[in-house]
Amino acid sequence: MAVGQKLYEGKAKILYATDDPNILLTHFKDDATAFNAQKKGSITGKGEFNCAISTHLFKLMEANGVPTHFIDRPSANEMRVKSVKILPLEVVVRNIAAGNLCQQTGLKLGTILTPPLVEFYYKNDELGDPLLTFDRLQLLDLATPDQVDQLIEMASRINEILTNFFQQCGITLVDFKLEFGCVSSGVAQTEGSPRQIILADEISPDTCRLWNQAESDPDKRVMDKDRFRRDLGNVEDAYRQVMERVLNQTV
Amino acid sequence: MAVGQKLYEGKAKILYATDDPNILLTHFKDDATAFNAQKKGSITGKGEFNCAISTHLFKLMEANGVPTHFIDRPSANEMRVKSVKILPLEVVVRNIAAGNLCQQTGLKLGTILTPPLVEFYYKNDELGDPLLTFDRLQLLDLATPDQVDQLIEMASRINEILTNFFQQCGITLVDFKLEFGCVSSGVAQTEGSPRQIILADEISPDTCRLWNQAESDPDKRVMDKDRFRRDLGNVEDAYRQVMERVLNQTV
Repeated sequence: MAVGQKLYEGKAKILYATDDPNILLTHFKDDATAFNAQKKGSITGKGEFNCAISTHLFKLMEANGVPTHFIDRPSANEMRVKSVKILPLEVVVRNIAAGNLCQQTGLKLGTILTPPLVEFYYKNDELGDPLLTFDRLQLLDLATPDQVDQLIEMASRINEILTNFFQQCGITLVDFKLEFGCVSSGVAQTEGSPRQIILADEISPDTCRLWNQAESDPDKRVMDKDRFRRDLGNVEDAYRQVMERVLNQTV
Repeated sequence: MAVGQKLYEGKAKILYATDDPNILLTHFKDDATAFNAQKKGSITGKGEFNCAISTHLFKLMEANGVPTHFIDRPSANEMRVKSVKILPLEVVVRNIAAGNLCQQTGLKLGTILTPPLVEFYYKNDELGDPLLTFDRLQLLDLATPDQVDQLIEMASRINEILTNFFQQCGITLVDFKLEFGCVSSGVAQTEGSPRQIILADEISPDTCRLWNQAESDPDKRVMDKDRFRRDLGNVEDAYRQVMERVLNQTV
């Protein structure tokens, strides 16, 4: 498959066209950014680690009936994906209070959230990815009410699957961010039939907060991008260990 | 009525105890703050203007069946109010996009919002009064679902009354912030009976965005605290003019 034009370069991935208009090639970069790209760096091997982890977790989703954009992984840091129209939303699922939620609400780090919190953020770098209420989501016409219901249902189901999976890896899934896309099928849509929503982007230590259950120290347990954000050191080791534990579990 | 102990000093008002435990005395200050008190100043006569405007608008509310904490206005910048337990929420009603809504969503200033947007913010200076989703509101236990429904209904009704009233004053009500309190009655509550929610705080150019309908210039039309926030000048004149127009309309 010939790699075509660069379509989009994000903070962690580059998207290329292929000779099939329904298929794109994602290149996972080692580049790391945080705080809306105010902090920049590189994590050696991250592209490969995240591509491997995401591949395994997308397969896990498909095996559990959650449709994703994943097709295959032609090389260590490349993934072929279905071409979708990405919804301009970040869907965040929180099992335990951490990060922005603590800063914005005063909730203590580590507070168990029962039921888990499903939140929507506006995927907009210029505005700093602000939190959305349902009313703002509607007002900005970012998704229909039906799509919102579907996203909450899918995110909750994905959380169940991921939480159980990471539990088997000895890892606590604290929170994670998902992106979804609408399938831009070449086939003409029946009038009024909604376009299918599928899971897109990636699932990796860049997009999840993951705590090592073997560690109780609040800094040592961190196995995700917080190591980079908060200069905790051993970033590569943490990502590599997540990859090894994830790949060790069958889907 | 003897004025008792100072109970609380806020950015714009001081609350005193009185010899009746069910009644408090509010002193309206000339002090002005903005951007979570990062900007500080004084608006000569503001205490009196806001006390007069709020008095008139609370009477308007009562005349329209909306319960408020207002009792009377014993002096130019003092108001006697019922003692209530203030809910730690700022309820913001938006008819036209302005301020934070534009900054956080990218919506253009002046966008008409149909239906009006009713939003909740966490009244917490330390956290910078953050926007709340319904889920966060529940999670932080800031109000019960019933109270939230009641607050939305009351805020919407208050918006109808205020919008019509200001229309008669030649003023467009762009948005406004309300605070509510639960009546702390001396009478024992029947088990399970909810405490009554009533409108508290103030309704003034400190808490409303008001645009002079006779002006089309986006700076000249401003008759509210945005003149102070944005250094537009003639702040006192604007407040005085709001007061004159408001007092000129019968309740």
